[in-house]
Amino acid sequence: MTFAATVLTLYPEMFPGSLGHSLAGRALERGDWSLDAVQLRDFATDKHRNVDDTPAGGGAGMVLRADVLGAAISSIRDDRPILAMTPRGQPITQQRIREIAGGPGVAILCGRFEGYDERIFEAYPQIEQVSLGDIVLSGGEPAALAILDACIRLLPGVMGGASSGVEESFEGGLLEYPQYTRPSEWEGRTIPEVLRSGDHAKIAAWRKARSENDTRLRRPDLWERYCDARDQSASGARHED
Amino acid sequence: MTFAATVLTLYPEMFPGSLGHSLAGRALERGDWSLDAVQLRDFATDKHRNVDDTPAGGGAGMVLRADVLGAAISSIRDDRPILAMTPRGQPITQQRIREIAGGPGVAILCGRFEGYDERIFEAYPQIEQVSLGDIVLSGGEPAALAILDACIRLLPGVMGGASSGVEESFEGGLLEYPQYTRPSEWEGRTIPEVLRSGDHAKIAAWRKARSENDTRLRRPDLWERYCDARDQSASGARHED
Repeated sequence: MTFAATVLTLYPEMFPGSLGHSLAGRALERGDWSLDAVQLRDFATDKHRNVDDTPAGGGAGMVLRADVLGAAISSIRDDRPILAMTPRGQPITQQRIREIAGGPGVAILCGRFEGYDERIFEAYPQIEQVSLGDIVLSGGEPAALAILDACIRLLPGVMGGASSGVEESFEGGLLEYPQYTRPSEWEGRTIPEVLRSGDHAKIAAWRKARSENDTRLRRPDLWERYCDARDQSASGARHED
Repeated sequence: MTFAATVLTLYPEMFPGSLGHSLAGRALERGDWSLDAVQLRDFATDKHRNVDDTPAGGGAGMVLRADVLGAAISSIRDDRPILAMTPRGQPITQQRIREIAGGPGVAILCGRFEGYDERIFEAYPQIEQVSLGDIVLSGGEPAALAILDACIRLLPGVMGGASSGVEESFEGGLLEYPQYTRPSEWEGRTIPEVLRSGDHAKIAAWRKARSENDTRLRRPDLWERYCDARDQSASGARHED
């Protein structure tokens, strides 16, 4: 089954962009996913094909018009999830990426300028407003590229042997453990002894400890959630006794 | 002054990609920023130009070699910040983007596969390990495109009148307020009355209230930090009495 990606954008020429190369590019050629980059301007109704106007109440920049956005959203006639990229949204998670990658595809609305006329989200409550972390982009397009990349690598057959996709950061609520490879000595620095021991149980324990330690130090937010989930599951297990 | 971007990658053909269009593309043509996409493979020392090898201790995927990465990092001979994109890193913030955009440029290391040999971060502690939110990409390239986009839009002269860059999400610790524009009525939905009042003080108060409300509901994490900062500054003001 082909994963169908539609991007609604003022810059369709930005696509497939980086997704035309490497894993995603080969998967696109094979037909594992399809890409339809749709020009938002095609949904404008006036003769100048205007898509934006000045903010009501004043302020810098331009706002994408509700009538244009409404027509664009209405053109998505299936039940794929619709994401609108905006710094006002909730940060997208790996769990949501996994859900989307397991479905028929996704439509992504890319804002520019000062954003969307808010009425679009009242009229189409099914639109998910998502951000890609706490930075402000010139538009939603680089974020859409990243989100599609994250989905495509999870499609069946895309990664092949390149990565497991299971034992990695955010899966299980922890950052991934640090990695090492040959040469075994580099500029006086060696690979941790345990990784060369061949003792799989010891290696797994070391990796788990490093994952926990690095998550605690680098991502206290993830660490807190991980501990809460662990405590709850331990408490649940006791109740089942 | 030209903002100098260097990307160390196995896929230099992914650049400038989306950055070759719109605001960033025109700024690149004008020379407001420069882009050097460097092939990591050029730093391989063996005759097969190998850049990666299997993980020490076992596991799926391939790890980028420390000797190759070390040679690549050493090729950055100025004092620009060096970022390594990795889901093990700390999420980059708009504040850090602003600092980088105000400097001479940035070098970005793009991992692929299972990541970097960890010794590179011991040997070069100045490398900042950063992520772009809690999703896993096929490589650092889409993240590098997003980070460069966020920097470039802040360079002098790039945005022009397109956006203020000051009154926006994350600046001041809050999400931006919702926006509206013409038509004043769309599918029975009107623009909030206050925004058509012409009363600038009332408009500012409404926008502040909406920013606070949306941040509280959508981003409890940002809201908590915002309240802490507000309380501290209020307490500081009292101490100065």
